Amino acid sequence: MEKERVKLVGFWASPFVHRVKMALKMKGVEYQYIEEDIRNKTPLLFELNPVYKQVPVFVHNGKVLPESRIILEYIDETWKNTPLLLPQDPHQKAMARFWADFSDNQLGKVALEALCSRGERQEKAVISTVEALEKLEQELKGKVFFGGDSIGHLDLVIGWISYFMPLWEELASIKILDSSKLPAVNEWLNRFLTHPMIKDDLPKKEKLYAYFDEVSRRIAPLYGSEI
Amino acid sequence: MEKERVKLVGFWASPFVHRVKMALKMKGVEYQYIEEDIRNKTPLLFELNPVYKQVPVFVHNGKVLPESRIILEYIDETWKNTPLLLPQDPHQKAMARFWADFSDNQLGKVALEALCSRGERQEKAVISTVEALEKLEQELKGKVFFGGDSIGHLDLVIGWISYFMPLWEELASIKILDSSKLPAVNEWLNRFLTHPMIKDDLPKKEKLYAYFDEVSRRIAPLYGSEI
Repeated sequence: MEKERVKLVGFWASPFVHRVKMALKMKGVEYQYIEEDIRNKTPLLFELNPVYKQVPVFVHNGKVLPESRIILEYIDETWKNTPLLLPQDPHQKAMARFWADFSDNQLGKVALEALCSRGERQEKAVISTVEALEKLEQELKGKVFFGGDSIGHLDLVIGWISYFMPLWEELASIKILDSSKLPAVNEWLNRFLTHPMIKDDLPKKEKLYAYFDEVSRRIAPLYGSEI
Repeated sequence: MEKERVKLVGFWASPFVHRVKMALKMKGVEYQYIEEDIRNKTPLLFELNPVYKQVPVFVHNGKVLPESRIILEYIDETWKNTPLLLPQDPHQKAMARFWADFSDNQLGKVALEALCSRGERQEKAVISTVEALEKLEQELKGKVFFGGDSIGHLDLVIGWISYFMPLWEELASIKILDSSKLPAVNEWLNRFLTHPMIKDDLPKKEKLYAYFDEVSRRIAPLYGSEI
């Protein structure tokens, strides 16, 4: 078989890119990585993802695909003879999709607001973030990973919590990952961060800290705050 | 085999519910339909969908599933010996998911804004809606349906355009479905509306008109308009 031509266009701090990198590593797929500066987007990104102009973009044998969760499913369906990321039972698969969407669209939004807002708005956003995580706590109970005994689709999608949330807590002087309220999530977080497939490829903490310090100040006005 | 127990909790005007009804009809799956008044939600809805408290909720042999696009995928994966809704080629499948998400999250938002806002904001929303539809126009070109020769996942997801958009144009005195700009979309719209699997189960035009007249007035303040 002709060698696969696999490219990933990404940005070093993007959790949406990291989940794809993790999937490719778990699947043992070799690829060319192309770093994109999302503050100074190149014509390549506009050409590959004209609708959203965002990373990641995945290119497989010339076929272009944007959107990280859709890319994850594509990878799982294309490289089938490797550990599967989504459960094969249709209902379990559907629920993994449900919580993955919840993580990106509900949890992600309130967590970012907790990072970037101040005062009463921040207090409310912290409460909403904890409440969202408590839902995932229920989903995780009795399991080693969201995927069951091994890392799966939902772990990769939710993975951002493990390397972002402690930094965001520090940066915004807030407490979210309370181990008395979220014992399973806290255990999962350590298990995920120290997993052999994950631990060596995460962005460096200091670099991420500086990045989010700048990002949170820049977007704070959107949340009614000047920080 | 024991008879399948299939229930669908819905609301008569919801396009998210109608896409699931259409999928079940195409698959030949019998089900019990439970109408929920979304203005006066019952304890059943809170119990079945505690995260979003929204319709549709699908219940199959006691297993509960919310979120219409996730339900559509579940139905396709569960009743496999019936016409498949998603393409089997992984890249085509991924792109159907991409455009389905685009329809719900990009097109849907600007179209609702075009219905409910006024003045300059409405003019901009109309332009954005046409631009979003022009992207779908490109996707549709040369095909009978978004799913190819037959109605598929993406047709069911985008189906709302066919029975909502002409009403919204009338209600808000706007023009979106310009056949010179969107010839393929306009042809698809008529083909979809008159399809034997679709035409008999759509909500009545007069009832929908009255419903959206009320809805658009009620939510207009969210768009800075008093209508």
